[in-house]
Amino acid sequence: MNAFISNPGERRLVLAGGRAHPELAEKVAESLGIDLLPTTAYTFANGELYVRFGESVRGADAFVLQSHAAPINEAIMEHLIMVDAMKRASAKRITVIIPSYGYARQDKKHKGREPISARLMADLFKTAGADRVMSVDLHTAQIQGFFDGPVDHLWAMPMLADYVKSRVSPGNLTIVSPDAGRVRLADQWSDHLGAPLAIIHKRRDPSVPNQVKVHELVGEVEGRTCVLVDDMIDTGGTIVQAAEALFENGAKDVIVASTHGLLSGPAVERLQSSGVSEVVITDTLPISDDKQFPKLTVLSIAPLIARAVREVFDDGSVTSLFDGNV
Amino acid sequence: MNAFISNPGERRLVLAGGRAHPELAEKVAESLGIDLLPTTAYTFANGELYVRFGESVRGADAFVLQSHAAPINEAIMEHLIMVDAMKRASAKRITVIIPSYGYARQDKKHKGREPISARLMADLFKTAGADRVMSVDLHTAQIQGFFDGPVDHLWAMPMLADYVKSRVSPGNLTIVSPDAGRVRLADQWSDHLGAPLAIIHKRRDPSVPNQVKVHELVGEVEGRTCVLVDDMIDTGGTIVQAAEALFENGAKDVIVASTHGLLSGPAVERLQSSGVSEVVITDTLPISDDKQFPKLTVLSIAPLIARAVREVFDDGSVTSLFDGNV
Amino acid sequence: MNAFISNPGERRLVLAGGRAHPELAEKVAESLGIDLLPTTAYTFANGELYVRFGESVRGADAFVLQSHAAPINEAIMEHLIMVDAMKRASAKRITVIIPSYGYARQDKKHKGREPISARLMADLFKTAGADRVMSVDLHTAQIQGFFDGPVDHLWAMPMLADYVKSRVSPGNLTIVSPDAGRVRLADQWSDHLGAPLAIIHKRRDPSVPNQVKVHELVGEVEGRTCVLVDDMIDTGGTIVQAAEALFENGAKDVIVASTHGLLSGPAVERLQSSGVSEVVITDTLPISDDKQFPKLTVLSIAPLIARAVREVFDDGSVTSLFDGNV
Amino acid sequence: MNAFISNPGERRLVLAGGRAHPELAEKVAESLGIDLLPTTAYTFANGELYVRFGESVRGADAFVLQSHAAPINEAIMEHLIMVDAMKRASAKRITVIIPSYGYARQDKKHKGREPISARLMADLFKTAGADRVMSVDLHTAQIQGFFDGPVDHLWAMPMLADYVKSRVSPGNLTIVSPDAGRVRLADQWSDHLGAPLAIIHKRRDPSVPNQVKVHELVGEVEGRTCVLVDDMIDTGGTIVQAAEALFENGAKDVIVASTHGLLSGPAVERLQSSGVSEVVITDTLPISDDKQFPKLTVLSIAPLIARAVREVFDDGSVTSLFDGNV
Amino acid sequence: MNAFISNPGERRLVLAGGRAHPELAEKVAESLGIDLLPTTAYTFANGELYVRFGESVRGADAFVLQSHAAPINEAIMEHLIMVDAMKRASAKRITVIIPSYGYARQDKKHKGREPISARLMADLFKTAGADRVMSVDLHTAQIQGFFDGPVDHLWAMPMLADYVKSRVSPGNLTIVSPDAGRVRLADQWSDHLGAPLAIIHKRRDPSVPNQVKVHELVGEVEGRTCVLVDDMIDTGGTIVQAAEALFENGAKDVIVASTHGLLSGPAVERLQSSGVSEVVITDTLPISDDKQFPKLTVLSIAPLIARAVREVFDDGSVTSLFDGNV
Amino acid sequence: MNAFISNPGERRLVLAGGRAHPELAEKVAESLGIDLLPTTAYTFANGELYVRFGESVRGADAFVLQSHAAPINEAIMEHLIMVDAMKRASAKRITVIIPSYGYARQDKKHKGREPISARLMADLFKTAGADRVMSVDLHTAQIQGFFDGPVDHLWAMPMLADYVKSRVSPGNLTIVSPDAGRVRLADQWSDHLGAPLAIIHKRRDPSVPNQVKVHELVGEVEGRTCVLVDDMIDTGGTIVQAAEALFENGAKDVIVASTHGLLSGPAVERLQSSGVSEVVITDTLPISDDKQFPKLTVLSIAPLIARAVREVFDDGSVTSLFDGNV
Repeated sequence: MNAFISNPGERRLVLAGGRAHPELAEKVAESLGIDLLPTTAYTFANGELYVRFGESVRGADAFVLQSHAAPINEAIMEHLIMVDAMKRASAKRITVIIPSYGYARQDKKHKGREPISARLMADLFKTAGADRVMSVDLHTAQIQGFFDGPVDHLWAMPMLADYVKSRVSPGNLTIVSPDAGRVRLADQWSDHLGAPLAIIHKRRDPSVPNQVKVHELVGEVEGRTCVLVDDMIDTGGTIVQAAEALFENGAKDVIVASTHGLLSGPAVERLQSSGVSEVVITDTLPISDDKQFPKLTVLSIAPLIARAVREVFDDGSVTSLFDGNV
Repeated sequence: MNAFISNPGERRLVLAGGRAHPELAEKVAESLGIDLLPTTAYTFANGELYVRFGESVRGADAFVLQSHAAPINEAIMEHLIMVDAMKRASAKRITVIIPSYGYARQDKKHKGREPISARLMADLFKTAGADRVMSVDLHTAQIQGFFDGPVDHLWAMPMLADYVKSRVSPGNLTIVSPDAGRVRLADQWSDHLGAPLAIIHKRRDPSVPNQVKVHELVGEVEGRTCVLVDDMIDTGGTIVQAAEALFENGAKDVIVASTHGLLSGPAVERLQSSGVSEVVITDTLPISDDKQFPKLTVLSIAPLIARAVREVFDDGSVTSLFDGNV
Repeated sequence: MNAFISNPGERRLVLAGGRAHPELAEKVAESLGIDLLPTTAYTFANGELYVRFGESVRGADAFVLQSHAAPINEAIMEHLIMVDAMKRASAKRITVIIPSYGYARQDKKHKGREPISARLMADLFKTAGADRVMSVDLHTAQIQGFFDGPVDHLWAMPMLADYVKSRVSPGNLTIVSPDAGRVRLADQWSDHLGAPLAIIHKRRDPSVPNQVKVHELVGEVEGRTCVLVDDMIDTGGTIVQAAEALFENGAKDVIVASTHGLLSGPAVERLQSSGVSEVVITDTLPISDDKQFPKLTVLSIAPLIARAVREVFDDGSVTSLFDGNV
Repeated sequence: MNAFISNPGERRLVLAGGRAHPELAEKVAESLGIDLLPTTAYTFANGELYVRFGESVRGADAFVLQSHAAPINEAIMEHLIMVDAMKRASAKRITVIIPSYGYARQDKKHKGREPISARLMADLFKTAGADRVMSVDLHTAQIQGFFDGPVDHLWAMPMLADYVKSRVSPGNLTIVSPDAGRVRLADQWSDHLGAPLAIIHKRRDPSVPNQVKVHELVGEVEGRTCVLVDDMIDTGGTIVQAAEALFENGAKDVIVASTHGLLSGPAVERLQSSGVSEVVITDTLPISDDKQFPKLTVLSIAPLIARAVREVFDDGSVTSLFDGNV
Repeated sequence: MNAFISNPGERRLVLAGGRAHPELAEKVAESLGIDLLPTTAYTFANGELYVRFGESVRGADAFVLQSHAAPINEAIMEHLIMVDAMKRASAKRITVIIPSYGYARQDKKHKGREPISARLMADLFKTAGADRVMSVDLHTAQIQGFFDGPVDHLWAMPMLADYVKSRVSPGNLTIVSPDAGRVRLADQWSDHLGAPLAIIHKRRDPSVPNQVKVHELVGEVEGRTCVLVDDMIDTGGTIVQAAEALFENGAKDVIVASTHGLLSGPAVERLQSSGVSEVVITDTLPISDDKQFPKLTVLSIAPLIARAVREVFDDGSVTSLFDGNV
Repeated sequence: MNAFISNPGERRLVLAGGRAHPELAEKVAESLGIDLLPTTAYTFANGELYVRFGESVRGADAFVLQSHAAPINEAIMEHLIMVDAMKRASAKRITVIIPSYGYARQDKKHKGREPISARLMADLFKTAGADRVMSVDLHTAQIQGFFDGPVDHLWAMPMLADYVKSRVSPGNLTIVSPDAGRVRLADQWSDHLGAPLAIIHKRRDPSVPNQVKVHELVGEVEGRTCVLVDDMIDTGGTIVQAAEALFENGAKDVIVASTHGLLSGPAVERLQSSGVSEVVITDTLPISDDKQFPKLTVLSIAPLIARAVREVFDDGSVTSLFDGNV
């Protein structure tokens, strides 16, 4: 008799999705050629959430996808509870997929006695049982350092840029950063499309210190089709003001391109009634029917996530999807 | 010159409250004779929460109170974020006060591939920075063992029981457990009031195996004023059915006493239209105007919490508040 | 030349057993069709324990089985030391098998300044290196939440119930819970066998508050063969008193069924001299010769543990062994 | 006899300094009115470091200061070893003071398979025993979120700006950010001094995509005294090129102001031979004799650190030193 | 009204003792001038241990003393459970006092697949809640590095040596190490008493490789009173053989001095029947009546532990008790 | 469609080497028949280190080798940064190979307020992401217990001893320990070669207490070829004094054998000018050209490390390489 039993150690990938954005999870599953893990989830009368997986995940390489969409705290809590259930069900490795990372903007203390909620989120997922995180276009790249483990940082720009290129010849395009914080992103677009760059800088009027904000433009936009790029569109205020500044400076047309379409509050009305000709976003967040509007184009991030999941599962290279830049 | 500076090491207590149940935090502060810590809290357009404390908490013995009330996931997340801010602001010790502990009923796996959310909550608060937890009438006492640190478990029964005693002579009372899971609680009432005990047992009809549930009564209730005791009233279904069973068995009157008034969904209507004469709860959870109804009496848990906070701060004994039982 | 070497990543199961209950470990190994891992273990003159494994366990999926039997602290310490040795010998994953979990009854603070030893045990095994825990019929299901990782909770009831069914026709049986704390277990027996349920409730005499305990019976037992079910038999006091109450109420026969046979102190004499006709337990704990008595039947838990180990090793489903209930 | 002994719990502050920048530690001690903790430190023949404290630090509120100056890895290792010795000597609380935080620029993955060394540093200090971190002008504010605990982030700008104001009337000043990454810092200067702002943007020539970098100036500098602000001066390349761009645009004078004077390699020669009239830095890093040059002014950060240490020790507010901004 | 309450932050010392060696705990308490913390401890029928403290320890500086005496695993488990109870009762700081550290000899892997039980013990106490450890004469000093926190290492040698000096003039003494492993200890005795040193080396006979062990003596013992020093006496075999070797080499008298008197198995008979004139040990372990014998002298370690506890409590220096050597 | 994807779970070994001793990493790779992982590493102007791996290591069984050679703190920091990069790049398991473990001699507190740097190093590597450690001839075996995980402890003695045997017949050899601390090592040589043993003991002159150190010899060396064995040669002082003592006692020849050749400061000159005929070391540390001298023989440890790496990767037995002794 032997002192041991052996088996071939085959690996198994499962993908579970929360209720915040089921369409995206389904599209990712479809891209992978599998079904989503059967999952029961509901909300009790007092608002507590319940989740149970319908099939064994023992030993599986589990991917748990939830968009941190409104109601965002419920989405995050459901995500944490799914991870807990996955851990206690003996999944071998748990990769949390957060297409749009919640609380990403609270990534530092602006003042004393504030939280750093973006770090807190990373720690909460670690505690719940996450071994790895996959996310798309984090608000600042330093958030990668908040999680104590590997982070696969995906990058929607190539997809958005290729779409824009299919609509307007790059020779007519100028890439515009709506403020100083997004210059690096605009640089990447500029590199990718070979198009010139402009920056809008909100600064104080030099002649009236400390008071009047001026939307000052750096670079040439006269007669150009401008692509205003940002990581997220929340209430749309910044982006619409930037568009106006561009038209005032002679821009021929303005296209807005952004990864995360939060489209909170007045965003839809602001964008639709602005001079912007098209708003291109991805579906990292769900776009409900009341957020749809004629100028809006939504590209699916699902194929990119699916490819990254496959690379992770097969011990391939996520970096290779972006030519070494992550 | 000396190699050190010394100071007398005075200790300072601060109490902060979240937005889920501000009245309770204010009452606790009032009982303590202090103001609540000035706190800025608001919700961004996309649902993300923001908290900042208005005064230094450096070195303080900080108590952070939030009821896990509806919308419960938002309440919990705000609580976690407050703890994170407190930790990063250098509070010396952080005691999380959870008058009504969220997800307490998910304290074990009933089936495979479920979460144990009550344990998860304990871990999330530990991760955010909680050193200690104070709570009232946990759904099961084992939850004390979920937190990796000291838990002060307060006990609303004496207050509720004394109130009932002030209304009905104990000689006319019978304490009733609405199901097998609450017998220990009913025992404690029985001890405290010197009143007899009855139990309602939902069991299958012995002559019809596996199908019909019978509300069987153990003990005598004929002509008695029954006190139905439970830790929480959620949708009120169980408690109203139990009351009906009591009346069917000849009870003269039924009073309901419970610590946590969730009063979800149909609870208010069910209770008000039932034969129950009075429903006595505490304010561990906020009772909004639309949850008020004529039969409802709400006792404040604030003085008890305030006394416990004071014992904790002064290195006294919380156990002593309950004659050694915690 | 390549930048890497690859191998097929075969997995290997090993099973090690401590000295507290070697027969059980051997039976589990036999059920699995393997030998136990060769292990050297002895006790030094001053009581310190020593363990060494005789073969490489590098990369193995290791299962380390020890019953927490008397002398229980020695059994637990040997178990911890085995796990430490396994961790330092580079086992890939360590599953601690505790057929009978020590200190399970100290699962909450009954009074202030008590330990929660059941949580402490979970933490000690985690610290020593346990990745997972497998146990049988935990005293309360919440103990699953004490361990920071997956717990496979096995369930002896189906085996015990099927044995009883083989002796007495279910049509003649009534399942009895010896106190309020075991009603859920009795419910499960009742479901499994389609037999009616009765409960013995130790309560105070309603006419003499606070003093006299009455063993009150709920349900019909007249002329029935009663199966008294419990998770463990320690000194046998509760179970024998319950049996007496059943006979007083006209029971025709009483069978006792319990998972864990601690059989401490007077248990053997009490049970043998009682009116109980048969005591059915499992071998989660060793039954030494002086604990054997004519009425005692011991069923082996080994095949169930072996099947669960195999499911764990093969990434199958332990839940499936119990129709979804764990 | 009593069951306890009590003492008044007086607190004691001690300050220890490493060998990387002893002058700074001494100045901080002097500002506090104490001696540095007597410390033995030396380097063995093979490069290993040794540290021992000469007086008891038991129960002390210990501050351990080391500049991460060249040779930087030795400085960091000595810092870690000091913290370890402090922990094992039973200091009550350990605050690591890092006037210039090493590896701050490696705060994210620019490409796949890079480290995030700034996070690693935070974790190493936590592991060694640091309870808290105090630092000056972190390269990005997100680094605050890398440490799992409170971070006191000091801010040299007011001191530098007040010095500049004492030399040149703010009416004649323009604050200049040398690239897009420092605009926030320049904004703060602008606010503090009420002076207008300009930005130098290194961007690609819009007519020659992807190739030629242009130092483009936003804002007016003609005839102004420009203050080029940055968090650190390493080899001086960026800052000198920016100064040239300013002169080309008609600036009357250029002053460079920066917190951290790394002054690596060619920095001294570059700055001295440039058109810059004065380079103002602080002594967060040691300025050896060979790094001194006529245009260089070094302001001491010691009084600010001393004030912050005192606030921390006395449970005061570090935030208050900066009007709420940290 | 204020936003906070303050109190003077007085500190309180409590000392709790386990059942393994109650006399020692009482003597330490007496030396400190306090009563032991009232503690309830008993053993259940199945061997499980129970502990409860009889007074509040909230906020206390708690010292928990247990000798790791036979039955050693029970003693250790009781110690762990006491620490758990202390932690959950909100003691502020827990110092574990282990006069004789269990499993100290298993401090490394001698062979593959062994545990390192001395490290495991350190981790178990950390997990249970120990903040600090105090111990006497650890088997190897490296064990200090096994605990993740401060270790106060006391040293019985001065007390033992002073006793010996009071009996025999140092001018007539020779200190003897019974094997190569204790040379450092013997060196310390030699320094302390100004007496010459000898070493017994068990080595193979050079003429008969690998087989015969020779007790070879280094140094002069002819006509001298030899003091054989060791950290512990277990079964007494080594020490008695060493004594014989000394007499064979002309020693006039042999005194044995050792910190820990395990006195397992044949130790008492061996020592009593040997030529040794006196065996001096301390009471780090209990010496039951059947271990007493005429030649045995037991000095109490209690005053030293009490002094160390007082230094720890008062933020004094334990190092100072030993002239800087710890 | 399936609910999962499976793959065969093949494992992949990669080996990365730091810049402290590239030759050794290359030799190990060569022994394994692979290339080293392509790695970019450089040092910034201010001394900060940068590392990036050139190929995907996702899912790999990664071995990261760095000798802790001078400048030792830089070597250690580069090692830590490599581990961090490996962790963030999703290596599955990281084994840190430290041929010569830095700070091994600071393995305990000799005096109060010292660090235990050898434990600190173990914790730093754990924090950076190391799952396992492999090292050669640790200064004391207890260091194995400092790392919280498996340690593979390799043993250079057989290789060194076999080399010596190839030069001198064991019948003419005597193994000599240069002080009491290395006796166990000398014992192992003696066992391996069947040669007699001698010890040099530095002790105080018995006739002049406390002052004069005598190099006393135990055992016979007259006319013998002595092999002085030690784990490391630092400045060579001890070993050369020991050699002189041997010659004074009539040794015919002296060979020095040691695993780690630090050869700091005057070591080369001391050894070359001594009477020692040959110095045999391994290449766990780099031997630069200026450390080469005629009497020096360097054996490569690479084949042994390669064999151990292969055993680890293939779940074989490292213990088996040394006949069960590790």
